[in-house]
Amino acid sequence: MSAAQRSILALSGGVGGAKLALGLADELAPGQLHVLVNTGDDFEHMGLHISPDIDTLLYTLSGMANEELGWGQAGETWQTMEALERLGGETWFRLGDKDMATHLWRTRQLQQGKSLGEVTTGLAQQLGVQTHVHPMTEEPVRTTVHCAGENLSFQHYFVRERCEPKVSGFSFEGISAARPNRNTMRLLQDNAFSSVVICPSNPFVSVDPILQLPGLWLALRDNPAPVVLVSPIVAGLAIKGPAAKMMAELGVPVTALGVARHYCARYPGLLDYFVIDDSDATLADDIGKLGVEVAVTSTVMKNRADKARLARFTLHLGEAS
Amino acid sequence: MSAAQRSILALSGGVGGAKLALGLADELAPGQLHVLVNTGDDFEHMGLHISPDIDTLLYTLSGMANEELGWGQAGETWQTMEALERLGGETWFRLGDKDMATHLWRTRQLQQGKSLGEVTTGLAQQLGVQTHVHPMTEEPVRTTVHCAGENLSFQHYFVRERCEPKVSGFSFEGISAARPNRNTMRLLQDNAFSSVVICPSNPFVSVDPILQLPGLWLALRDNPAPVVLVSPIVAGLAIKGPAAKMMAELGVPVTALGVARHYCARYPGLLDYFVIDDSDATLADDIGKLGVEVAVTSTVMKNRADKARLARFTLHLGEAS
Repeated sequence: MSAAQRSILALSGGVGGAKLALGLADELAPGQLHVLVNTGDDFEHMGLHISPDIDTLLYTLSGMANEELGWGQAGETWQTMEALERLGGETWFRLGDKDMATHLWRTRQLQQGKSLGEVTTGLAQQLGVQTHVHPMTEEPVRTTVHCAGENLSFQHYFVRERCEPKVSGFSFEGISAARPNRNTMRLLQDNAFSSVVICPSNPFVSVDPILQLPGLWLALRDNPAPVVLVSPIVAGLAIKGPAAKMMAELGVPVTALGVARHYCARYPGLLDYFVIDDSDATLADDIGKLGVEVAVTSTVMKNRADKARLARFTLHLGEAS
Repeated sequence: MSAAQRSILALSGGVGGAKLALGLADELAPGQLHVLVNTGDDFEHMGLHISPDIDTLLYTLSGMANEELGWGQAGETWQTMEALERLGGETWFRLGDKDMATHLWRTRQLQQGKSLGEVTTGLAQQLGVQTHVHPMTEEPVRTTVHCAGENLSFQHYFVRERCEPKVSGFSFEGISAARPNRNTMRLLQDNAFSSVVICPSNPFVSVDPILQLPGLWLALRDNPAPVVLVSPIVAGLAIKGPAAKMMAELGVPVTALGVARHYCARYPGLLDYFVIDDSDATLADDIGKLGVEVAVTSTVMKNRADKARLARFTLHLGEAS
């Protein structure tokens, strides 16, 4: 099997990761890309099973994503939320009318006994997504954000509290009993992947829950496919989301070097390539000293061409090794 | 306590009953009307607890009802249903975007341990409804429509199959273990009602499930408050819904007399007054022979004034006795 025919595995959280996943999907043959998606953000809300990162992936890959909002579906409306407000209901988590259909559909299928993986595959099919989108696990893993004085479930921290509480750490409830996605593990065993791309997602709440699934990061490390990580921090800023704020609160330097240290300390030997932005080129030497190959390019993805370009860059790194 | 200060109890299903309930509410002081509502149509759909008749009452009494559709809310939109259609989801039961909020709110509150009665009271408060709207029972009672060769749950018969299958009978699963609404039973014991109005609802699937709750119809019969029933069949037609079609299929004459026989046979001694439309005046003698007082008036409610007029008529009958 030549590298060109083999599959690519991407690890992704929500918005930031989905951008690169879209670029990868554009560059690869239909069905060649597998994305292993964080489900630590999943939660049950008003009787619905909500999988925010999976939905972001599916909406992005199907072209349904709301580019202005940065989440949810294009052309979304909010009739249910407005009516719920009149009823004095819980409206902190904004459920769009179109988005609601996804939650209803998923909840219904899960109640009928399907697995989250099967439901996700079914959703992808219905939405015309040819990329294989896998939940990181079938078991419930729930990210908890430790803040001064209280532990918040991820969505309470992220949406209800708008990431305002100061963070002191994270835990992933249920992770020790969770098994990594079976399809992905089987493909790893079969050496089906020519490379693994860790998308520029939040290290603490998007990528860590995936990598800390029992057996997963060691399986990635011990697999011949090179692991390429794209830094989510560019010029000291997170392109999207609370990663930079979290790093500052945890006392970690808010730089690509801080990100690299995080990964190299927790997952020694995992990363082969660490991709940083041109603006962070001066950090290359220090990152290199951690034992990873540093690759420098423009990593900011403003449009579809940017995404495809960064995707090609990461794919070439994988092929070169 | 004078009759004018005492409460009125109405028994109601959905649309037809809600019309007279609105008329009664308009004629009475705030809080003077209690409506005991059929919940045999309730069902669980896509994880949501749906109470169609209660919602019809609440939307009608709050002025939110969709007059054109005859069900649901005014200004309703269907974004969720359209998105669900794209997903190949179940769309036979049309859940409007505004209506969805009611189902989410109710489901959430039930999951938190509230009773259906408490949830209904809460909804009424949020929607500014001053009428006391009571589910007929807290226990699940589910109407089953017996058709040639199969038994259909009510919503499958009514919505999915559009009332097309030929009906041979009905059963109300769970009814023998169901207790009638406690508030209503207490008010009956306290002789708090000056009269009881059975709205022009479907006898088989709206009123029978209420009256067949253990102890209820006997409590109504043995209570001094007169019971006034308004015929849902006018000139051989049902104003709304499948009542006429059901009667024909059951071999019952599709007339107000057929309705009267149904009630007098099943609930002997219950009815004091039987209200029929002017167009059915020739049936008065035969109905009278069943042992009920027949009152003739215009019973077709096309507008709010019609509703109030018919409400006054039924109230005067109650006061006269």
